[in-house]
Amino acid sequence: MVDVPLLVEQARQGRPRAVARLISLVEGASPQLREVMAALAPLTGGAYVVGLTGSPGVGKSTSTSALVTAYRKAGRRVGVLAVDPSSPFSGGALLGDRVRMSEHASDPGVYIRSMATRGHLGGLAWAAPQAIRVLDAAGCEVILVETVGVGQSEVEIAAQADTSVVLLAPGMGDGIQAAKAGILEIGDVYVVNKADRDGADATVRELNHMLGLGEARGPGDWRPPIVKTVAARAEGVDEVVEALEKHRAWMEERGVLAERRRRRAALEVETIAVTALRRRIGDVHGDRRLDALAERITTGELDPYAAADALVAELTSGGAEPAAG
Amino acid sequence: MVDVPLLVEQARQGRPRAVARLISLVEGASPQLREVMAALAPLTGGAYVVGLTGSPGVGKSTSTSALVTAYRKAGRRVGVLAVDPSSPFSGGALLGDRVRMSEHASDPGVYIRSMATRGHLGGLAWAAPQAIRVLDAAGCEVILVETVGVGQSEVEIAAQADTSVVLLAPGMGDGIQAAKAGILEIGDVYVVNKADRDGADATVRELNHMLGLGEARGPGDWRPPIVKTVAARAEGVDEVVEALEKHRAWMEERGVLAERRRRRAALEVETIAVTALRRRIGDVHGDRRLDALAERITTGELDPYAAADALVAELTSGGAEPAAG
Repeated sequence: MVDVPLLVEQARQGRPRAVARLISLVEGASPQLREVMAALAPLTGGAYVVGLTGSPGVGKSTSTSALVTAYRKAGRRVGVLAVDPSSPFSGGALLGDRVRMSEHASDPGVYIRSMATRGHLGGLAWAAPQAIRVLDAAGCEVILVETVGVGQSEVEIAAQADTSVVLLAPGMGDGIQAAKAGILEIGDVYVVNKADRDGADATVRELNHMLGLGEARGPGDWRPPIVKTVAARAEGVDEVVEALEKHRAWMEERGVLAERRRRRAALEVETIAVTALRRRIGDVHGDRRLDALAERITTGELDPYAAADALVAELTSGGAEPAAG
Repeated sequence: MVDVPLLVEQARQGRPRAVARLISLVEGASPQLREVMAALAPLTGGAYVVGLTGSPGVGKSTSTSALVTAYRKAGRRVGVLAVDPSSPFSGGALLGDRVRMSEHASDPGVYIRSMATRGHLGGLAWAAPQAIRVLDAAGCEVILVETVGVGQSEVEIAAQADTSVVLLAPGMGDGIQAAKAGILEIGDVYVVNKADRDGADATVRELNHMLGLGEARGPGDWRPPIVKTVAARAEGVDEVVEALEKHRAWMEERGVLAERRRRRAALEVETIAVTALRRRIGDVHGDRRLDALAERITTGELDPYAAADALVAELTSGGAEPAAG
């Protein structure tokens, strides 16, 4: 068994191995998960969590790295959580991308962690907030959560952030594509990266137009700014930090930050509860039972609702055995 | 109340309005949902479900439309389910894309339905299979499920298909990006669209290389083919259909199709059950209860696991009131 209080104390002192160990404990749902989470709870709430999302190729890793540099210049301790979809090739192929972060690898004021998505609903939405809590408790003042793609799970991870940054690049797809990707409802700050390329101004214009189509805003409402950057040359990155700080100040003034964090916590509780219930469906009935139901569905004998109703009824009737472990 | 048996009979006769009505009933979780699903069950299992996925800009809608044309030439009845992320702008902005389908709008042998993702976990993974069941029961021999993006939810929808087609386009991102996008584990058939553009052969080579990096395959294993297309000019589309038919035949020979459908049904049951349980968390405790817990988490007084454990314990102890409706 791990000495959790010692590990938490070491993480507070900024020891990277203690932070890594804690994240592994919460990520892997170890038996000590609950002990870790309880120990972390009173230490959290100090970090400003910034989510970065956007399609592959817009330069998310480069932008994240440039933001780390900017925040380090300002003397902040920074945590980076890079969330990648799982892939049979993730062992080797994905390392290339992390190389862009290597300049920060020897900086004790920066903690970088990659996290792979699990193949299942609730996987990342469940694991990412725990890792954020560890980084928060370890004293990171800014946590950058970089997520790949713009799918539903990414949108949910963006919901974990205090401020969501949506990255675009010229020529990566027009406004309709952006809308299809569902990114226009989640951005607090928009960044058009690779702004030295043709079409950058057109992308900004189009984005401006799309954002203008949203619901009417009141006089005190937040109008997401659009910042042009060339992250590879650190151009525009200070302006991104400025936009982030403005958004943070705006949220604090209006109580939006506290409200977002409450919503985030509620979502977290719900996700953990649902994950536990999902696990119980397996525990209680065993895969063979589910397989047998599935077989009857494929033959047309049973419909999936009738099968699900039966499972739920058993689970909530109190007849369920306690989950193992 | 809707006369469900009549509606089902009309849908079987190919009446588009009856099909639309049934999909609305299952999509909206109407009180008659269970009656509809029970009525559909014995009529399902005849359709071959093909999933199409890929990043925005690869030409999914155009490819889907070209496939519809090809299957219609072969005399098949075709259903199309186009799954879009929800967006505040979806009402207008997304229509442009569906225009590419308009050539099929007057064909009684084609049924086209758009479906928006819900903002919540379980939304689409829950609704899409029901719509597929309606199209299946209505006599569609081929159902094309076009999903946007390559996020987790899209991967889950791909799991609903008998055969998954992953679309790429030259210059849309290199192999690492494709791996990051998590698409290399879900494709049964790969299509490099816009193959008249520069870099098409490089994309094919790279894809070939990435696919070769996967687990070792046995002599009878399926090696996903890579087909080059220019969907806008219908080039290569017959080859895609051929690859699909080969995959289908391979699956049938080896019992893979039946196994996939059992897995699909099991996933469906699990998703419905989890959705119901998630709803009960809200029903039983009310949002205020969850809000109060969330508030205590943001102040560091409580951790999310302790809160979730309490919710789950109450829900599974049999103390829960039956869900309304």
